Amino acid sequence: MSKVPVIEIFGPTMQGEGMVIGQKTMFVRTAGCDYACSWCDSSFTWDGSGKHLIVQMTAEDIWTELKRVGGNRFSFVTISGGNPALLSNLGALVAILKKNKIKIGVETQGSKWQDWLYDIDELTISPKPPSSGMTTDFSMLSTILEKLKIRNGDQHMSLKIVIFNQEDYEYAKDVHQRYPDIPLYLQVGNDDITTSDTGQLANHLLAKYEMLIDQVMMDEQLNDVKVLPQLHTLIWGNKRGV
Amino acid sequence: MSKVPVIEIFGPTMQGEGMVIGQKTMFVRTAGCDYACSWCDSSFTWDGSGKHLIVQMTAEDIWTELKRVGGNRFSFVTISGGNPALLSNLGALVAILKKNKIKIGVETQGSKWQDWLYDIDELTISPKPPSSGMTTDFSMLSTILEKLKIRNGDQHMSLKIVIFNQEDYEYAKDVHQRYPDIPLYLQVGNDDITTSDTGQLANHLLAKYEMLIDQVMMDEQLNDVKVLPQLHTLIWGNKRGV
Ligand code: SF4
Ligand code: SF4
Repeated sequence: MSKVPVIEIFGPTMQGEGMVIGQKTMFVRTAGCDYACSWCDSSFTWDGSGKHLIVQMTAEDIWTELKRVGGNRFSFVTISGGNPALLSNLGALVAILKKNKIKIGVETQGSKWQDWLYDIDELTISPKPPSSGMTTDFSMLSTILEKLKIRNGDQHMSLKIVIFNQEDYEYAKDVHQRYPDIPLYLQVGNDDITTSDTGQLANHLLAKYEMLIDQVMMDEQLNDVKVLPQLHTLIWGNKRGV
Repeated sequence: MSKVPVIEIFGPTMQGEGMVIGQKTMFVRTAGCDYACSWCDSSFTWDGSGKHLIVQMTAEDIWTELKRVGGNRFSFVTISGGNPALLSNLGALVAILKKNKIKIGVETQGSKWQDWLYDIDELTISPKPPSSGMTTDFSMLSTILEKLKIRNGDQHMSLKIVIFNQEDYEYAKDVHQRYPDIPLYLQVGNDDITTSDTGQLANHLLAKYEMLIDQVMMDEQLNDVKVLPQLHTLIWGNKRGV
């Protein structure tokens, strides 16, 4: 059976961001990314520093490990990365999860298409703003968003953009103007991914969150949007695997 | 034209809790409640202390005021209380908002039915747990939830329960067992609704939030749930009208 590189399986924990914020979920984190965002908070998945953690697993292996770690305490699995959409054979895992009536969430930046994305219940497409150092391929992004339009009403998708600065904010407005009918989530960027002082980080990020809210509330071009922090960072700071 | 008692109109601001957490929205807060929860954070809507703020308004008056305050900076209106479901003639406001393509959110405790509830895009039913001092009429709640099943796929509803103690937690489990197919939001109760030290309150509530998460993550009977704080309280503390 074909295998995928997995770097972490953990949970159940609370999804701290985006369209299913607060959801009780298991996490499967795959290795590898086609991007190298300057502020990536999961760079161990692709920069070599987490190489020793990568295990090649079949879909059955992953399902067995999910049950071993999460027991009967989950009904939702989030597949995250890196960029899980690099992996065509994740389709086998998606099929197993669906067969077991597990809901599936995925986050990917919208740079690659896989047919198994059709089957994701809660799909976050998170194009990266200028501060990441990456350039969005809007033609690919549009192709992906177009494909996803045919899905059924129980499946949801959204765009999510992390905001670090004014340029990112303008980028988010551009994206909203291009795709006004797709639910848009704006997220406060965590600009200190190394501190271990969680209390201070929470206060800092809440202050930044308030500033972003203030700006969006005044802006006629960003009306049908949601503005959110990363809840896991407010609680657990930069700790990994919680 | 028939009038409704309105106690506050403000925004746009960010919806701090529940199924549309983070949403940019205007708020219309109606006066009057059939409950008197021990920890009500909007008791000025029903306990007489906000009596001088109540204005009897037609639906047209409310729409005019929403446009005056919010300009072109909103596409979503939240109707809150008190219990807005006490007011049959809110239907006229709902109709005006729909005609103007404004999405509508409502929160009500599920003690009263009104036909205009059929037309709410994002409807939160928040039965009150034991710590409130109130008793849930489950037969009425079931009737309401049954009626709402016929709505279309673009309309959403959820149950939301605020948790202050272990008894509330057990109540939430009971509600989830009664209505397993309705999305359930668990919310950390704010047990200090008078302090003006926002920073300390935020830290206190984040610690309580973490404890609630820990409990839910271990619990096989609460799998398909979302656990959330009140974001507005983390940012603005107990301030009103933000
Ligand atoms: S796309 Fe995501 S995982 Fe890849 S580098 Fe950027 S932030 Fe990191
Ligand atoms: S139902 Fe809501 S508004 Fe009414 S008393 Fe309880 S908390 Fe307050």
